[in-house]
Amino acid sequence: MIDLDDVRAAARRIDGYVRRTPLLPATQFRNPVCAGSLHLKLECLQPSGSFKARGAANKLLASDPKDVERGLVAASGGNHGLAVARSASLKNVPATIFLPENVQAEKVDKMRRWGAETVIGGANFDEANAGAHAYVEKTGALYFHSFADPLIVAGQGTVGLEIFDDLPDVETVVIAVGGGGFITGAAVALKALKPSIRIIGVEPVGSPTLHASLKAGHVVTLDQVTSNVPTMACQRTDERLFALTRQVVDEVVLIEDAAMEAAAKQLWFEFGLAADSSGAAAMAALATGSISTRDNEIVCAPVCGAGLPPL
Amino acid sequence: MIDLDDVRAAARRIDGYVRRTPLLPATQFRNPVCAGSLHLKLECLQPSGSFKARGAANKLLASDPKDVERGLVAASGGNHGLAVARSASLKNVPATIFLPENVQAEKVDKMRRWGAETVIGGANFDEANAGAHAYVEKTGALYFHSFADPLIVAGQGTVGLEIFDDLPDVETVVIAVGGGGFITGAAVALKALKPSIRIIGVEPVGSPTLHASLKAGHVVTLDQVTSNVPTMACQRTDERLFALTRQVVDEVVLIEDAAMEAAAKQLWFEFGLAADSSGAAAMAALATGSISTRDNEIVCAPVCGAGLPPL
Repeated sequence: MIDLDDVRAAARRIDGYVRRTPLLPATQFRNPVCAGSLHLKLECLQPSGSFKARGAANKLLASDPKDVERGLVAASGGNHGLAVARSASLKNVPATIFLPENVQAEKVDKMRRWGAETVIGGANFDEANAGAHAYVEKTGALYFHSFADPLIVAGQGTVGLEIFDDLPDVETVVIAVGGGGFITGAAVALKALKPSIRIIGVEPVGSPTLHASLKAGHVVTLDQVTSNVPTMACQRTDERLFALTRQVVDEVVLIEDAAMEAAAKQLWFEFGLAADSSGAAAMAALATGSISTRDNEIVCAPVCGAGLPPL
Repeated sequence: MIDLDDVRAAARRIDGYVRRTPLLPATQFRNPVCAGSLHLKLECLQPSGSFKARGAANKLLASDPKDVERGLVAASGGNHGLAVARSASLKNVPATIFLPENVQAEKVDKMRRWGAETVIGGANFDEANAGAHAYVEKTGALYFHSFADPLIVAGQGTVGLEIFDDLPDVETVVIAVGGGGFITGAAVALKALKPSIRIIGVEPVGSPTLHASLKAGHVVTLDQVTSNVPTMACQRTDERLFALTRQVVDEVVLIEDAAMEAAAKQLWFEFGLAADSSGAAAMAALATGSISTRDNEIVCAPVCGAGLPPL
């Protein structure tokens, strides 16, 4: 699907369209998160509030301008929709974003401020995505898939290049999983640069898409999705993507929604960072011991998305 | 009161007790803030949620441990109280924080989580501070003034060292003013390192403490404080501090509370940053044109404190 060269090409393409986010040691915590030496990559500071700005910018800039002119359409739990809305505004074209009913109202408001039209319906990403596909059929607008697109995956993978650049000694990278685009893109880059690196995904107990597929050895469709974290609720990953995921991701652990909420509270208390549940998921997996680290193990957890602190 | 050596001594003393915060170019804004090239210094990512962690840590570490053992007391609009509460927790001693009635409830909650006792009363900092003084008389606890203390001022000044270190070409630094400790400490360091630098303070129209004192040529007591920004409401600065402020601060501009709120909204929209009104004040002064900048002028605005985004 993609390799390191695609990620590097994406990095060149989106340079000047997204932010180089800071990577900070998670020191001075009242309650340390794990035995390892944790570093946070603040993707929540991207223009659209998450790493999704990268993939959407890469897709936008690599697409034929004539296709872009027809307007953009996407389905999203929130963060990809924000990124596509923001991409559309860069080219002054319309965007229509299909969202599940549990999307955060505050994110919908931001999408509208970016100028997007929002359509809310369906219990999760997959149901919202059906609406997006119907809309594309009808209008011919340019569809931005949130993970099953090589340009999107390569764009998200640029986070991996920056992590390695800022923290070459990194041993373990922990990444929240929705459909699998971010973790796979980042893992492609990181494993190519440093084969010894350990890449661990984090999924909600109520949406174990990659976990179930890795266990089965093939892509499975979940019977039900019970997680209420809209940015991490996905019934089925993509075949092409999964073929790559299997090669580069070492493990996927499952955590409860409540653990992510607790980690988001901790990020707000300890770091003044306003992260959504998916933004706090990697830290939650470390804090709960779902992922164990040895003393001083160099660990990186992207804070993947901004969100109102749960107080 | 203090000079560059005191700020350098503070930096050495607090190293390992506070964070080296990132300084980021404010690029990729949908609506650019000013003509100049703006950089944000993210002091909102300090352990206690603001730059106040620096001054409080410096005072803590420079104080006689026997005095510290008696417990700490402070009055605060919110951020200094958080910093003192956190300092007390570093040494496992009690802290009592006196707060005005308009303090943000969320900050009071954080102080309690740091283990502090909180006493809410009075319309503004000065009235809360009277309560703190009475408490010190009664108990002999160690008083941490939020600005009229050389150790506090030197601690806050360490932000200036980092700004110059990360951005030596900086031409203008814009800093929110409460009592004047932060701007004076930072200006002492910055003017010593680069005499050509322009240091501009920002006060609320409803609490023009330094503005009025600079105009009068001596410290004045405001008849009334009408700003509702608790971290920037101060009726009177300190004589010793003001003697220094006059030497190192070039100008103080006044802005409306609503402009700070609008800038906090913009920071949340554009940058995923949750800043309180004082944290957004410097950006507000630039965005409203209260401070004008020429094209490409290199400007730094610390985002001095975290707070819930006003939505």
